Amino acid sequence: MKLTAKGAATRLRIIEGAAAEIRENGVATTTLDDVRVRTGTSKSQVFHYFPGGKEELLLAVARYEADRVLADQRPELGALTSWDAWRGWRDRVVDRYRRQGEHCPLASLMTHLGRSSPGARAVVGGLVERWQAEIAAGVRDMQAAGEVDPDLDADRTASSILAGVQGGVLLLMSTGRVTHLEAALDTGIEHLRRSRPLSAGGALA
Amino acid sequence: MKLTAKGAATRLRIIEGAAAEIRENGVATTTLDDVRVRTGTSKSQVFHYFPGGKEELLLAVARYEADRVLADQRPELGALTSWDAWRGWRDRVVDRYRRQGEHCPLASLMTHLGRSSPGARAVVGGLVERWQAEIAAGVRDMQAAGEVDPDLDADRTASSILAGVQGGVLLLMSTGRVTHLEAALDTGIEHLRRSRPLSAGGALA
Repeated sequence: MKLTAKGAATRLRIIEGAAAEIRENGVATTTLDDVRVRTGTSKSQVFHYFPGGKEELLLAVARYEADRVLADQRPELGALTSWDAWRGWRDRVVDRYRRQGEHCPLASLMTHLGRSSPGARAVVGGLVERWQAEIAAGVRDMQAAGEVDPDLDADRTASSILAGVQGGVLLLMSTGRVTHLEAALDTGIEHLRRSRPLSAGGALA
Repeated sequence: MKLTAKGAATRLRIIEGAAAEIRENGVATTTLDDVRVRTGTSKSQVFHYFPGGKEELLLAVARYEADRVLADQRPELGALTSWDAWRGWRDRVVDRYRRQGEHCPLASLMTHLGRSSPGARAVVGGLVERWQAEIAAGVRDMQAAGEVDPDLDADRTASSILAGVQGGVLLLMSTGRVTHLEAALDTGIEHLRRSRPLSAGGALA
């Protein structure tokens, strides 16, 4: 559907309103009527932009929340070009998830939509791919600057850092403690830092 | 409740039957009658051992599945005393979760019981604590053997490895691919291995 500027703004207003409603009251209890009332839109407007109804709107909210996950990590993510930037990113990620606490809107949307449904898969797959690519770009920047072993596989290292973040957030949601997330990020960065002396010094044990 | 040997066996038979039923058909559709029929027990027997009904049985199944998570990682977990044991453990974990695929019985039980309910919290908290302690014991064994930097914080390192495993499993469930789990384990072990030359060589970059 090709939207006018005004149409795109209305559509975004509906998504933002639905996201706020879901953050406040949970995905199960949020109805299209709640979203309509909150955003001052009519039933026909909501169905004009989301002909598939609630499921289609929820999927759009999931994409919106996924974009927000990345946006909340900037400006450091996307410019991991110094150890200061890596430390700043680490602190920002920990702070984001500490504030978010035990209720992750994206996780609850995924559970509601069905983690293995094609729509949910596409949202998570896209987020994982972009997130990992930005971390890998940071590893490559540090390699280019001579700060990280050039032989380190940037994509694989980024993949392991992302797994650590995901697990840290999952354990935060299950235990209420942020320690695993901090340990995962600190160890991931330490691993990058420690890679340099070894490549200068020679063989692996 | 103090059980006789026969009582304990009956209780375990009900738990095992419920666990198998849930693995086959999912937690939402499994009823106490399904479990009764499968295990050849009477209604009064089931309520004798689980007076709280389905919720209490599900919590017992969750504990049973949590024990199984650790048991499936043996004999390597509990004896991570050589690089061969660490590699063997890595392969065993990857193989376990690859076979399990996208449906984790413990995760679905947690979602059903409510991730933040006290019962679910206690099961996950206990599993995380035992799992992490066994990985940390392995780090300490390698430190005692002179294979890992003695200054490395064993608990924190174990915490980051466990976060990587959890995130890798979560991403396996969301993407169907085992690559993050493999990368997290490989990087965690590589981090341990690389710690040695640095401590011999001197300062951190």
